[in-house]
Amino acid sequence: MLQRHHPIWYAQNAAGMLDFLYIDQRSETPLYRQLYDQIKSAINRGALPNGHRLPPTRELAGQLGLNRTTISAAYALLESDGLVQGHVGRGSFVKAFPIPIELRPSAISFASSRPAGDEFPLADFQAACMDVATGPDTAAILQLGSPFGYGPLRSHLLQEALAEGCAGTGDDVLITSGCQQALDLVQRVLVRPGATVLVEDPVYHGVRQVFSRDSLRIAGVSMGRDGIDMEQLARTVAELRPQLLVVTPTFQNPTGATMPVSARKRLLAIAAQFDVTIIENDIYGALRYEGEGLPTLKQLDRSNRVILLRSFSKIAFPGLRVGWVVGSKSAIARLAEARQWCDLHTDQLSQAILLRFVQTGRLRAHLDCVRQAGAERLRAALDACERHLPAGSEYSRPSGGMNLWVRLPSPLNAAQLLPAAERQNVTYLPGAHFAVMQPQEGALRISFGSLTPEAIRAGIAILGRVFSEELERGQIPSRFEAASALV
Amino acid sequence: MLQRHHPIWYAQNAAGMLDFLYIDQRSETPLYRQLYDQIKSAINRGALPNGHRLPPTRELAGQLGLNRTTISAAYALLESDGLVQGHVGRGSFVKAFPIPIELRPSAISFASSRPAGDEFPLADFQAACMDVATGPDTAAILQLGSPFGYGPLRSHLLQEALAEGCAGTGDDVLITSGCQQALDLVQRVLVRPGATVLVEDPVYHGVRQVFSRDSLRIAGVSMGRDGIDMEQLARTVAELRPQLLVVTPTFQNPTGATMPVSARKRLLAIAAQFDVTIIENDIYGALRYEGEGLPTLKQLDRSNRVILLRSFSKIAFPGLRVGWVVGSKSAIARLAEARQWCDLHTDQLSQAILLRFVQTGRLRAHLDCVRQAGAERLRAALDACERHLPAGSEYSRPSGGMNLWVRLPSPLNAAQLLPAAERQNVTYLPGAHFAVMQPQEGALRISFGSLTPEAIRAGIAILGRVFSEELERGQIPSRFEAASALV
Repeated sequence: MLQRHHPIWYAQNAAGMLDFLYIDQRSETPLYRQLYDQIKSAINRGALPNGHRLPPTRELAGQLGLNRTTISAAYALLESDGLVQGHVGRGSFVKAFPIPIELRPSAISFASSRPAGDEFPLADFQAACMDVATGPDTAAILQLGSPFGYGPLRSHLLQEALAEGCAGTGDDVLITSGCQQALDLVQRVLVRPGATVLVEDPVYHGVRQVFSRDSLRIAGVSMGRDGIDMEQLARTVAELRPQLLVVTPTFQNPTGATMPVSARKRLLAIAAQFDVTIIENDIYGALRYEGEGLPTLKQLDRSNRVILLRSFSKIAFPGLRVGWVVGSKSAIARLAEARQWCDLHTDQLSQAILLRFVQTGRLRAHLDCVRQAGAERLRAALDACERHLPAGSEYSRPSGGMNLWVRLPSPLNAAQLLPAAERQNVTYLPGAHFAVMQPQEGALRISFGSLTPEAIRAGIAILGRVFSEELERGQIPSRFEAASALV
Repeated sequence: MLQRHHPIWYAQNAAGMLDFLYIDQRSETPLYRQLYDQIKSAINRGALPNGHRLPPTRELAGQLGLNRTTISAAYALLESDGLVQGHVGRGSFVKAFPIPIELRPSAISFASSRPAGDEFPLADFQAACMDVATGPDTAAILQLGSPFGYGPLRSHLLQEALAEGCAGTGDDVLITSGCQQALDLVQRVLVRPGATVLVEDPVYHGVRQVFSRDSLRIAGVSMGRDGIDMEQLARTVAELRPQLLVVTPTFQNPTGATMPVSARKRLLAIAAQFDVTIIENDIYGALRYEGEGLPTLKQLDRSNRVILLRSFSKIAFPGLRVGWVVGSKSAIARLAEARQWCDLHTDQLSQAILLRFVQTGRLRAHLDCVRQAGAERLRAALDACERHLPAGSEYSRPSGGMNLWVRLPSPLNAAQLLPAAERQNVTYLPGAHFAVMQPQEGALRISFGSLTPEAIRAGIAILGRVFSEELERGQIPSRFEAASALV
């Protein structure tokens, strides 16, 4: 009962590993939904390991002072997500999604959209590192810095943006601790309470998490082969009057889709008509393996409504947390002020090392290698999909980035199939991980950025076998059967 | 008028450098107060430089579609803060507080509570840097990491906390991007909407900013010679029933005060009686120059209600943004989950370098030097205060840290005197900068951590002269006279 009055972290009387639970009776969120949200996020962050047995509904209901049907409703939702599995007479067990940061090193993992660590140019990194550590500015770099970012890097990035036409004279640059911080700051500073934010559906879960906060209303617009569905976007914008649209026009995560120039222009026109601000996530833009580069929305923007997010995380070293925002001076000033009270400023050593890495031409050289290796990986992934996925599968055919999106033929469910794949030492993120409004149950993301072409071929061959076997086995057990075994 | 419908960053028709203004007519905050808050924060962040002329009230009122009295009320508040000065017939001018990150390099600056950059052990830093950059884990360090922090550093810090009795078996460690991020996460994750948070008054402005957010109610408890006023704390806790108390028991910023053991125990008893969670900011704890170390609240805590914040920023290099939190496993898990969507994780290179710096004994050697130099600085500061401050001044006498607190005799106002001090090339932060509920107009913070004893003596001698001259000059112009000259 303690939870009613102390919804924060004193829930230690909840059963076993569920001691993180806090149920707020005053919240507008239904109780079963609070329970579901919290257990789900615990599974996703790894706090509840695969195979962990959830407490029986009767027991948890007693401990939390809730009705047993509330617990059952939460468990049923978790089961329909594929996060929990019921076994008659034994109880309910966690079937965790693997998350990128907690992978088994031996697996072939398609689960993380990140660069290949074994191709990091370590000698070049060491050289840049030494240059900075022994340079004339070391003491200044180690001292307290500016919330806007390390001056020389900020100035370089602004010059580069101006030269590219990604910034005008009214624009400025803020250096952030990666793109994720830029998204976080945008949500905290630029979005009105209660406003609607449109995102792509499916979308990178870090976007969904950030814009699901507080009193915001998040709505998804379907992704098609050419990026966000433009007809649906036009209807949704007219209907919901969103304040913000968050979009990744090039090599979107998770689908890999890229918007053609015509779609970009139409998107800007829709945004202008309804006065929508656009957050353009361009974190994959530099990773083009074939074809001509396309202008960013920021370059095409005539009405000062695009804020551009970029990062070194996909093109260099994600362990160094350095990204940046290009936007109007007033937006940047407001973001910088808020970020000062978040964490003062981005780590200066990494900013200085990355600047050195850029200025000595090492980033360019590294990018050439990354693009060449990426092209081989992409080819291997597409070939293997063609060869091994069961008939009726669909998959995207990106020209760059790190991800492709597979839709399995009905009735296959990618979350339910994950344990079988993992028994074969292959893992991926099921579509549900990226779902906003559509369940994406038949889909999965194949992240190929950190694997060798051999591993990609081997992994997709295994997945194809797992999926085909399941198809041949016929009907998978229905949710209702499983749900009846919850307690 | 545009602002009414577009409160975000489309306020470019506001006068000149005030284009960041956005007035939300739907907000519960009065319009004059919105204006005041935004101009004040713009001054504090340096967006409006010293001497900048604010637009005449008539003009700004017209541009914003507001009543002229609204503008005048905001300007009057700014003037009473000492942030703006009116000159008859010429208008209102910004008198910016200098902020630590934007200091003129030539000044003797008592404005920033930070270590001395010219005493950074650069050779030792370079060695640690090289060790990490050429070590066996470099590729892993440059790759995506964990929201909880770099494993080896986290494990080291937990072991250290356990050995010290700062952590129990139910505790865990989260590595943050400095203490500021820890405060930010605590506010976002652990505080209920509408809850009351008690802080010290005066307090580090980064604490005040964070806990002034959203729907929180922040209340200050006066600081005395022995830290937070225990009688007032007991009364305030009983009356306001706060959820959280944020406190810096050792070498508090800005006062330098330290709570004796008896006060620490009483504070814990009060918190236990009213079920208050304590955030213990121990960022200065390692900087003791004389006397015996005192147990932290976390060490004395018997009821699992203290969350301890520490950092490398004051004892090593603030440009590397690495701090940490010690708290119950469930609190740490919740903070880590939220931080994942803030910025994924803290920069790994800096974490690895600082760990190496610790494990090779270099931090210990550096701390010895820092403490010896700190003792000399503190002595110089106290001697100079004794010698040069005008009769009737009071100042704290800390045994460590980087700050002391001066109260000038009435009617001196530290914010109003700052320009005179700056004309003599000396700067400091006026008490108003740290004020929560009491105006602290007669007070200022002397941060001596980054200056030589000679500079400290010279700077305080100049301040003493400026203050004494003002006292001799007699009555300073009253606020009401100045306010009449606003337009």
